[in-house]
Amino acid sequence: MAEEPKKGDAVGSGVGGREAEEEQVVNPWEVTAKDGGKIDYDKLIEKFGCQRLEESLVRRVERLTGRPAHVFLRRGVFFAHRDFNEILDVYERGEKFYLYTGRGPSSEALHFGHLVPFMFTKYLQDAFKVPLVIQLTDDEKCMWKNLTVEESKRLARENAKDIIACGFDITRTFIFSDFNYVGGAFYENMVKVAKCVTFNKVVGIFGFTNEDHIGKISFPPVQAVPSFPSSFPHLFSGKDNLRCLIPCAIDQDPYFRMTRDVAPRIGYQKPALIESSFFPALQGETGKMSASDPNSAIYVTDSSKGIKNKVNRYAFSGGQDSIENHRKYGANLEVDIPVKYLGFFLEDDAELDHIRKEYGAGRMLTGEVKKRLIEVLSELVERHQRARAAVTDEMVDAFMAARPLPHMFS
Amino acid sequence: MAEEPKKGDAVGSGVGGREAEEEQVVNPWEVTAKDGGKIDYDKLIEKFGCQRLEESLVRRVERLTGRPAHVFLRRGVFFAHRDFNEILDVYERGEKFYLYTGRGPSSEALHFGHLVPFMFTKYLQDAFKVPLVIQLTDDEKCMWKNLTVEESKRLARENAKDIIACGFDITRTFIFSDFNYVGGAFYENMVKVAKCVTFNKVVGIFGFTNEDHIGKISFPPVQAVPSFPSSFPHLFSGKDNLRCLIPCAIDQDPYFRMTRDVAPRIGYQKPALIESSFFPALQGETGKMSASDPNSAIYVTDSSKGIKNKVNRYAFSGGQDSIENHRKYGANLEVDIPVKYLGFFLEDDAELDHIRKEYGAGRMLTGEVKKRLIEVLSELVERHQRARAAVTDEMVDAFMAARPLPHMFS
Repeated sequence: MAEEPKKGDAVGSGVGGREAEEEQVVNPWEVTAKDGGKIDYDKLIEKFGCQRLEESLVRRVERLTGRPAHVFLRRGVFFAHRDFNEILDVYERGEKFYLYTGRGPSSEALHFGHLVPFMFTKYLQDAFKVPLVIQLTDDEKCMWKNLTVEESKRLARENAKDIIACGFDITRTFIFSDFNYVGGAFYENMVKVAKCVTFNKVVGIFGFTNEDHIGKISFPPVQAVPSFPSSFPHLFSGKDNLRCLIPCAIDQDPYFRMTRDVAPRIGYQKPALIESSFFPALQGETGKMSASDPNSAIYVTDSSKGIKNKVNRYAFSGGQDSIENHRKYGANLEVDIPVKYLGFFLEDDAELDHIRKEYGAGRMLTGEVKKRLIEVLSELVERHQRARAAVTDEMVDAFMAARPLPHMFS
Repeated sequence: MAEEPKKGDAVGSGVGGREAEEEQVVNPWEVTAKDGGKIDYDKLIEKFGCQRLEESLVRRVERLTGRPAHVFLRRGVFFAHRDFNEILDVYERGEKFYLYTGRGPSSEALHFGHLVPFMFTKYLQDAFKVPLVIQLTDDEKCMWKNLTVEESKRLARENAKDIIACGFDITRTFIFSDFNYVGGAFYENMVKVAKCVTFNKVVGIFGFTNEDHIGKISFPPVQAVPSFPSSFPHLFSGKDNLRCLIPCAIDQDPYFRMTRDVAPRIGYQKPALIESSFFPALQGETGKMSASDPNSAIYVTDSSKGIKNKVNRYAFSGGQDSIENHRKYGANLEVDIPVKYLGFFLEDDAELDHIRKEYGAGRMLTGEVKKRLIEVLSELVERHQRARAAVTDEMVDAFMAARPLPHMFS
């Protein structure tokens, strides 16, 4: 079964010669909504050819794991998937799978958008008790952001500390950077994948052009092969049929559409995916946050004072322009960033419902909602900063050592 | 200084959409003379932009090494170069350099054409007392010949035995296969090179098309980076300015033209080259030998009887069609394969001169020349087979171990 995007796909035409200027563009390097509006996720599901994550799957996760679904699951942050049901079938039969996620280390500090997949992956690891590989694509960032090899490697290690601070279980987690780990069985799989993908194909999937350097054209197999257990002989030797589940934002789908196309041709299992929407910028939900604008996001390095200032000053409000109008019409929750952020990070469903109801009816003011958000974010950031300060270089070395994980399934 | 081939280059137009059907085609995967004639090496030098290896350089090699030049050097088998004079400058100043050559392991047994660069490289190693890295591009052959990873790796090891049998000094020689060695500093250099080369560029140099798979497009940096000492930290750590000399057949020039273009942009020295013509097929000098026709070449696995049969039956003769005409007009040495082969492998200059003179004048018959060639080749093959039989798996492991070579320059 070919996993081709449908004709007119915004991804294919997005990066290179963009044909339909007004279309939304979603690919691993660019996320832009149509006409400055909101990302149309239904359209994305249709174009990418993935599946909507139905409520029934969420209930099944709860039943199988015996614990409430993560906020990101029950509130639809992770909203699409590919074969996630098969992963649950595997688990229900008493078999195991492994998780694969990653990050391109292009910046010193992470913001909340970066944390979303890691927070969710930690939940999956805890709930299913499965091993996890985390790829830091320092080679990618060296090529796309024109960083030196040394700077990319340094950022990978810095980012690893933030990732470790999310609380991953060292007995089940292997973090690797491409500059350290590419080689051997991993490189063999890169070659196997590359043999199956033509230049025309990557032009169609990623929008590369003839003027792009061959490093970019060479890269997709690097992100593809952690989907295959044989790329990690120190972990999964002899377990070539182990299924892989990839939690990621939906902009990474093109990589894994390619991977799933290639997998059966080289005798491998297709990876399953569970895909999130984008964490919105403070200024509003028109795309991903921009690393070049520090005021578009809350960083895990921000102080409580900084968070307070950013939220009060920049968080786009759905409240009305005067108290009178606000009391009369209520807030527009569809565009209100403070409420959206609370939807990600306020765990208490009852409190969130209460805020939405009161704020939407105009009985609560923007300032009150922002105050609550500042509390929630500050607490999260403080907790993250404490955890990160406790991450030593030795811990990074330990997580990044290519070692067997004898208890990773237990 | 850009090392671009001149306009209308047969290489650029050779693999993909060939524009001038009648032009000669020389690239790493195809060697075809114009209209079935002989390769025009002067034209190749002009088009590739390399330099003719002048007699004065050969004399300089003899003076600096204190030994007679190798047969391949004094008889013009190695006929072109890039910056070989600079390598000799370096050596004359009492500094050192290193040698890099390689092989794509696509067949079980090597023929004499495969041995030429290795025989010459052994001479260079002995004469200059320098370290040598030998790359076995098992990844390349896996992709171009559609071999499995396992089969490519097996062939690499088998070929390593033949290479070791050429007599390389284990204290100065590191043999590696890409599937084993790609990674770490080597991969970092691959990424650095790939960043500097666009798809359009590799189309121009290698003739790739949009229908080629991205494995091919990714490969040129793999063959490029052994030119840089930093790709071998276990050998050349801290010696980033060590010069590299590459002995190879001239069809490999496109790789190193690309490499030399990129080198200064990433702060590295350009590799120097010394380039050979092609060892002709038994059927005549119209290109390289064909691996798909076992009767076009003498293999190092052939028996004496097999060699006798092949030479007598297939070696193209420049002799006349009757003894009368032969006595009258003499042999055409320009097309005579037995004489050409003797030019490669009969070390005695006086005897070769004598044969050329007598045969050219019609006083010697083709049968006599072939008889002498059979003796010479049989002796070489028997010597090679004895040497190869003595190569153990432990020796292969030893040559291929990534290890320091503390006495490699002494």
